[in-house]
Amino acid sequence: MPIDFAATKARFHLPEGVVYLDGNSLGPMVRAAPARVERAVTQEWGGMLIRGWNQAGWMTQPRALGDRIARLIGAEAGSVVLGDTLSIKVYQALASALEMNPQRRVILSDTGNFPSDLYMAEGLCRTLGGQYRLKTVAPEDVLSAIDETVAVTMITEVDYRTGRRHNMAEITKRAHEMGALTVWDLAHSAGAVPVDLAGVRADFAVGCTYKYLNSGPGGPAFIYVAPRHAETARPALSGWLGHEAPFAFDLDYRPGRGIERMRVGTPPVLQLAALEAALEVWEGVDMREVHARSLRLQDLFIKGVESRAPMLQLATPRSHLMRGSQVSFRHPEGYAIMQALIAEGVIGDFRAPDILRFGFTPLYIDEDDVARAVGVLGRIMDQSSWDRPGFKARAAVT
Amino acid sequence: MPIDFAATKARFHLPEGVVYLDGNSLGPMVRAAPARVERAVTQEWGGMLIRGWNQAGWMTQPRALGDRIARLIGAEAGSVVLGDTLSIKVYQALASALEMNPQRRVILSDTGNFPSDLYMAEGLCRTLGGQYRLKTVAPEDVLSAIDETVAVTMITEVDYRTGRRHNMAEITKRAHEMGALTVWDLAHSAGAVPVDLAGVRADFAVGCTYKYLNSGPGGPAFIYVAPRHAETARPALSGWLGHEAPFAFDLDYRPGRGIERMRVGTPPVLQLAALEAALEVWEGVDMREVHARSLRLQDLFIKGVESRAPMLQLATPRSHLMRGSQVSFRHPEGYAIMQALIAEGVIGDFRAPDILRFGFTPLYIDEDDVARAVGVLGRIMDQSSWDRPGFKARAAVT
Repeated sequence: MPIDFAATKARFHLPEGVVYLDGNSLGPMVRAAPARVERAVTQEWGGMLIRGWNQAGWMTQPRALGDRIARLIGAEAGSVVLGDTLSIKVYQALASALEMNPQRRVILSDTGNFPSDLYMAEGLCRTLGGQYRLKTVAPEDVLSAIDETVAVTMITEVDYRTGRRHNMAEITKRAHEMGALTVWDLAHSAGAVPVDLAGVRADFAVGCTYKYLNSGPGGPAFIYVAPRHAETARPALSGWLGHEAPFAFDLDYRPGRGIERMRVGTPPVLQLAALEAALEVWEGVDMREVHARSLRLQDLFIKGVESRAPMLQLATPRSHLMRGSQVSFRHPEGYAIMQALIAEGVIGDFRAPDILRFGFTPLYIDEDDVARAVGVLGRIMDQSSWDRPGFKARAAVT
Repeated sequence: MPIDFAATKARFHLPEGVVYLDGNSLGPMVRAAPARVERAVTQEWGGMLIRGWNQAGWMTQPRALGDRIARLIGAEAGSVVLGDTLSIKVYQALASALEMNPQRRVILSDTGNFPSDLYMAEGLCRTLGGQYRLKTVAPEDVLSAIDETVAVTMITEVDYRTGRRHNMAEITKRAHEMGALTVWDLAHSAGAVPVDLAGVRADFAVGCTYKYLNSGPGGPAFIYVAPRHAETARPALSGWLGHEAPFAFDLDYRPGRGIERMRVGTPPVLQLAALEAALEVWEGVDMREVHARSLRLQDLFIKGVESRAPMLQLATPRSHLMRGSQVSFRHPEGYAIMQALIAEGVIGDFRAPDILRFGFTPLYIDEDDVARAVGVLGRIMDQSSWDRPGFKARAAVT
């Protein structure tokens, strides 16, 4: 049954007068979220107190919600667990992968990756000792850079700046042919594009929930470990909730069964409640249909902007095969232009040095929103001031 | 001005008929928490969307709330930041300390430490390579075990099972004399006992907020770095929010200023809102007065239990100098006894193999609660079945 996008849009709270094209940064609130969080606070925490761990299912929620996300990313049931932040999950996945490929010393990534992934990899290499290193190449050179020295690739499928999408199947296949493992960062993929982790035989994947999955600010990250690795991957961040028997309080660590071992500490119960409410909207949603509609909205936006504001330069690939759910344009005055847009209620965001980002999230964005955004952007660009030499871009603050 | 404990008690929601002696595991909800969390959900997330990072102060909240906790643990302003879980913060502190003491290879801890601390240390040693090791000794042997091989001590001030309290000043002094650094785990100290991190010249400290500080299930952890180390400690978990300029999106990591570098990923905004509400109750509270009253309540409880239920064996030291805010008793049928207590509305908890734990948290527990708990425990123990040979303890599930 095709998705009723008007019905899904009605399930989100969007402030009056706002066109929200920043769901790629922080998804909006589903209308069910306040009541679900209120229940977690007053009935569960307030009423059950410590008994909430069992009675309200707090302890099993990271796995239960992991299964719901698994469906959206083509993962096997029982292979995804929630917790921590994306940066922590990157570290976990990389540390496990490196230990599983002990003859090799190189983490391969690209310069389009989100910097925190690169920083975490750098930090891990330092901790592991001097012989490990992070090698970064241009995004278009990833495939050819996978050689016999590479222990693991660490690639974000969709570029946070340009929205350019890697070919996950091709890179994974190449990595395996060369004896490397793969860590996929799905920050801009989960809830945005169809992902088939099991189908492409990905080894590890990580992602966040506060963007396309709408879990709210600071919502937890998730990690995927392919079932074929789940009993051998050794967690470097070996916390008690990843222990085989957390409540035995043994002095020695023994990894838990399967994906459980990737848990670390106490799960963020209130954030998970918000995520649970958000995932209700995703029930039964076919990611192929979501992405197809996103591409139609993106095309409409690109066409409109190139017609109304030709001084903006498209930074996103034109090919549908190379796109996520975001369109980016470049302009030297990008920061000021985005501030003007936001002041008019069209919310996207800016990434240094010159990128204007716009997310197209069909569950709550439609053609009318696109038309309004194009209109406002066109009017702003009609102001001649953008090309005056004295008009300087200010530094980015968000 | 002395604390008005009746007034602080009125600021907590405690379910009708419950005596809550488990604030050492999960603190109860302050009455202001639901409205504060609701504001974070609907007004901040729902209404401000991405703008909440600046407009609602989400980005600076981990430091702002860190300063409020700093006062409670005798830390310098600007030396504490919130985020992640306690296990992650243990890893961060240990990794930094080991790097600052590069000639040494031993982490010293004790068998009374919370197992997750030991597990995280084990995992770090594995990642660092074979030459590092975790050495654990009996709690009473810590002081004498600090020798020239020890790089860093990792000690939880108050034992999670027995409530026995270490002498933080003495251990820190000894560690420094022997050239070791110190990581203090304040999980059962922050909000429970007076801590003077600056006074004892502690190097690192970590703690959680969901116990005595009442931030709710899954509330974030905190980390302290002594100001004299803050510009040299190198974070192993080098996430983007610990970068000198997170929004410059540089490809290379440069640690942020001072404690900022111990941030990793996106802060848990909803959990932090609950913490903010909880910390309001702590404004102006003198920890010495809180702990003195806790000791009086503990003494009352010990005296009552030893009189009414002498078959329970005290596991907590009698000396006030060696106590936190918790009293533990041992009994072979401890699990079943605790289940019976909980069924009667007296909530403590059980730790394998035989420990019954009771937390005494004066902000919401008073003499009447103690008397009722003693009475209920006495009645339960009057049942002869506890001493029947066939009555077996069940396995712990929480």
